[in-house]
Amino acid sequence: MTERGAAPAGAEPGPAHRVSLGATRYGKAETRVVRVDRSAARHRIRDLNVSIALAGDVAETYLTGDNASVLPTDSQKNAVYAFAQEHGIGEPEEFALRLARYFVETQPAINWARVSAEEYGWDRIELAGAPAPHSFARSGRETRLVSVTCTGARAWVVSGLSDLVLLNTTDSEFRGYPRDRYTTLPETGDRVLATAVTARWRHADAAGDWAESYREVRRHLIEAFAGTYSRSLQQTLYAMAERVLAARPELAEIRLTLPNRHHLLVDLAPFGLPNANETFVAADRPYGLIEGSISRDGAPEPGEAW
Amino acid sequence: MTERGAAPAGAEPGPAHRVSLGATRYGKAETRVVRVDRSAARHRIRDLNVSIALAGDVAETYLTGDNASVLPTDSQKNAVYAFAQEHGIGEPEEFALRLARYFVETQPAINWARVSAEEYGWDRIELAGAPAPHSFARSGRETRLVSVTCTGARAWVVSGLSDLVLLNTTDSEFRGYPRDRYTTLPETGDRVLATAVTARWRHADAAGDWAESYREVRRHLIEAFAGTYSRSLQQTLYAMAERVLAARPELAEIRLTLPNRHHLLVDLAPFGLPNANETFVAADRPYGLIEGSISRDGAPEPGEAW
Amino acid sequence: MTERGAAPAGAEPGPAHRVSLGATRYGKAETRVVRVDRSAARHRIRDLNVSIALAGDVAETYLTGDNASVLPTDSQKNAVYAFAQEHGIGEPEEFALRLARYFVETQPAINWARVSAEEYGWDRIELAGAPAPHSFARSGRETRLVSVTCTGARAWVVSGLSDLVLLNTTDSEFRGYPRDRYTTLPETGDRVLATAVTARWRHADAAGDWAESYREVRRHLIEAFAGTYSRSLQQTLYAMAERVLAARPELAEIRLTLPNRHHLLVDLAPFGLPNANETFVAADRPYGLIEGSISRDGAPEPGEAW
Amino acid sequence: MTERGAAPAGAEPGPAHRVSLGATRYGKAETRVVRVDRSAARHRIRDLNVSIALAGDVAETYLTGDNASVLPTDSQKNAVYAFAQEHGIGEPEEFALRLARYFVETQPAINWARVSAEEYGWDRIELAGAPAPHSFARSGRETRLVSVTCTGARAWVVSGLSDLVLLNTTDSEFRGYPRDRYTTLPETGDRVLATAVTARWRHADAAGDWAESYREVRRHLIEAFAGTYSRSLQQTLYAMAERVLAARPELAEIRLTLPNRHHLLVDLAPFGLPNANETFVAADRPYGLIEGSISRDGAPEPGEAW
Repeated sequence: MTERGAAPAGAEPGPAHRVSLGATRYGKAETRVVRVDRSAARHRIRDLNVSIALAGDVAETYLTGDNASVLPTDSQKNAVYAFAQEHGIGEPEEFALRLARYFVETQPAINWARVSAEEYGWDRIELAGAPAPHSFARSGRETRLVSVTCTGARAWVVSGLSDLVLLNTTDSEFRGYPRDRYTTLPETGDRVLATAVTARWRHADAAGDWAESYREVRRHLIEAFAGTYSRSLQQTLYAMAERVLAARPELAEIRLTLPNRHHLLVDLAPFGLPNANETFVAADRPYGLIEGSISRDGAPEPGEAW
Repeated sequence: MTERGAAPAGAEPGPAHRVSLGATRYGKAETRVVRVDRSAARHRIRDLNVSIALAGDVAETYLTGDNASVLPTDSQKNAVYAFAQEHGIGEPEEFALRLARYFVETQPAINWARVSAEEYGWDRIELAGAPAPHSFARSGRETRLVSVTCTGARAWVVSGLSDLVLLNTTDSEFRGYPRDRYTTLPETGDRVLATAVTARWRHADAAGDWAESYREVRRHLIEAFAGTYSRSLQQTLYAMAERVLAARPELAEIRLTLPNRHHLLVDLAPFGLPNANETFVAADRPYGLIEGSISRDGAPEPGEAW
Repeated sequence: MTERGAAPAGAEPGPAHRVSLGATRYGKAETRVVRVDRSAARHRIRDLNVSIALAGDVAETYLTGDNASVLPTDSQKNAVYAFAQEHGIGEPEEFALRLARYFVETQPAINWARVSAEEYGWDRIELAGAPAPHSFARSGRETRLVSVTCTGARAWVVSGLSDLVLLNTTDSEFRGYPRDRYTTLPETGDRVLATAVTARWRHADAAGDWAESYREVRRHLIEAFAGTYSRSLQQTLYAMAERVLAARPELAEIRLTLPNRHHLLVDLAPFGLPNANETFVAADRPYGLIEGSISRDGAPEPGEAW
Repeated sequence: MTERGAAPAGAEPGPAHRVSLGATRYGKAETRVVRVDRSAARHRIRDLNVSIALAGDVAETYLTGDNASVLPTDSQKNAVYAFAQEHGIGEPEEFALRLARYFVETQPAINWARVSAEEYGWDRIELAGAPAPHSFARSGRETRLVSVTCTGARAWVVSGLSDLVLLNTTDSEFRGYPRDRYTTLPETGDRVLATAVTARWRHADAAGDWAESYREVRRHLIEAFAGTYSRSLQQTLYAMAERVLAARPELAEIRLTLPNRHHLLVDLAPFGLPNANETFVAADRPYGLIEGSISRDGAPEPGEAW
């Protein structure tokens, strides 16, 4: 973003010592905001962890400690709370867009802002068979993610989720791989396949029905995982991505990170017991890690989205 | 459990140096076992983290390194997997009882065994509106707990849960407290009340319908939290405990640990904004911590349960 | 501590429904306080995480929500900071004693107070070969622990440490153990022995040279671990405890919890390679867990120390 | 890396549905290897957590589940252990270079390999004033990092560290910043400045004295932090980077990520107490986050290093 030459302080450097400040970012990370909508008898709640990163013409503070362009990160935190109060939170994409635009539009030195958020889900409690008006249990399932990047002229929206843990007890094999000097793994025609999905998908536009888009992408990811007969976790990854892009025309690209949470078959032969894919060790480390990006042909370029 | 005098090695100790070995325990902790029941077309899954602690006549290994009484913790781990295969897992209380009894019954030196487990929940995935036959998503909600203690003659069963995060957006106040030199907290008639419940309940007997008991205790905890107008988190704790004991005659005692997950009202006056209990900071630390035990009058003594 | 009968709200209970409030505790947990002593040109720093638990005649808040005896946990937090400012922190045992006594002496309803703390170490930075006057690096080694319990009449002090990770590359064996149906572990005459020490030691009196005592107990624990030829981790545990009690007459008892951080020898035979105790997997789970308490004969009873 | 069109399975897609596989990576993450060098009476130890990522002509497994190009991640894990045994570990940069080259040189489909590692430090224990021959305590200080990327023709080496926690008790101010509608922060001429340094530095060449380079970069980072009078954490970041590049000609670039671990002055006025920068809350969240990259002018381009 910003680049400029700078002599090291207190030295008359020779050419070998000249250095330049390259890309920089700064901002307030992990502001925790909970917003209760009490406008109806049945309260609603949104719970976000918001991180802000700004860039622009801020080299002076790095080079000399002159802070004339450095909006304090404390002010950024205050803005999160004030925006939650003034505008509500709504969908996290909206909230992040509003904040990101605020910084580039009001701070002369700032020409790039990224607002990211994690959203934690809460389920309404049932009380005597009816929805409780103001009581919630944290869902504990996946975390919803959003990352909005804004320059003066444009905005990019990436939505996503993490920690969506999925498992198939069968319909997964792994065979036909090459062998090197260090290969001892036996081929298998039936294994447990488990992963903790991290997915991020880039919207073609900075507007849309964020709630529906999230709900549907999540559903397609889960159904594609469950419905794919898997010859490799890579194949499953691609099937998940392809299904999401096929079903959701508002998306330009999706990136998936899938750790292979190995469930190792326990050898029970020493105890005279069979084990027909029934008893497994859930291993912690090491784990396979499979990553991939799939894009719609002809979709807009990613620009500053990632 | 075991106590005996022992002179420090390499010294002729005076009386002040005589020390005695007191209570000891040893065992294998955190054995991760996943069991798939493939006996029907619709697979089922159970996922446990099992910890074993044994005690008895094992002083010799401490004092001299003679291991004649020390069943290896590796064998204990193997037993977890073998038992899962031979008997299935079933309800975690059953599984823990079976394992705990095995150690005290087969190891001459062992007269006390505790088998604890955490169980992680998995929800069956819906696929095109129907339950998928062999696909699951980790629920991410609370962890189910069990701790079984067994001596030769008796067994005690404690069930429980942790990380059940609950929140009421209103119907909570905190007033009428004493003030010392360091009290600055203003009284409040309306606050957010949130906690992450850890509960452990002791069964009067070592037999029962564990699944129903767990499901109902969990429901009563949640409903009592949601349905209590709270003047203090202590009052809510007692209401939760009392309701569980009133509803579940199979229980002798319940212990609750409730961190007060403070949601602090943000002062938005500097920005000319109101905040009528709508916008909160979800604070990490410090937090209040409220604990209590409630017992049924006339219930059996706890013995070795805790 | 407190026990009293209580009828469940909104019901005329039969005898089976009568329940009693048993032991309770409440207080502020994890107050993070950092204190800089600027009284000399060379600043000093102490960094504590303080948790407070109080008990006494506080049943009314559980039973009715009457808070007349409930000093707010917010006031307890304020006291931590005010005490740090007024008295400094000094040794954490002193700081905890002062706080614990404050609560039982000033709050009529409180007759039992426990103040626990973790202390994080900071090393002074060297700058051009000399100690920097006001710059520190967090040590990252073990955490120092203290837990002080105070009733009106008495105080008990338990000091300790956690996360002291020690490893011997040899001089450890494990043999001569019994075998059950599930034993497959081969005996070994040479293994890596590693553990993360948690130790807590009870002082006979509530006064002493806390700094020297801590420093020396820590040294003896480490030297006994390193200097013991180990036939079992239990033997090492006892040797550590015995050495501490032999060397430090101010102590009445020590309790150790030693996870066996297994370093598993990798089988490299499939690759035509030897492995003479050189290449290991550092395993995460499961792990052995060895616990024991050793007391000095004739030492004072523990009372409320633990 | 690989890009190719692919029709969604089971459909004759229209143009809007055509998608392409973009960049992919796969490999084994977090292989924990501990290596003991027993060649001298005084043993030595190295302790690494190794992660491998490979890329190349592997699209087929994503698109069809054909694994003919997919060296199993299990084989990669085995290679880590076999290499540790055959070649020792040595400096982590060497170890990572050797492994990365192995994959691109032996696997026809693989043309890009990244081997990353964390190294955990162990200090030799002192026993009766002398270095123990085979006993160690984990240092607990910063984690050493390495990331080597290798294509057939070239290799890039990035070294680094994380979790180096530094604190100055004075010589830090923050003033002269712009104010927006949400600014309430008062200026300060004296504050605590603390951070947990994550630093990564790119070497100009894939050869060097890695041990000395690491030791010296670490020293310069610490000394520059301690020795800089700071007007902003940005200024401190730049001073650290500049000093490292000025002192270490083998480096082309350094990237720093510095969370501002806020130590907030406690307002003790309600208790009639002063607080002249002595008593602080160590806050968890939110925190400022400052990032920057500084390069030597004329240094080689980063290529695939990051």
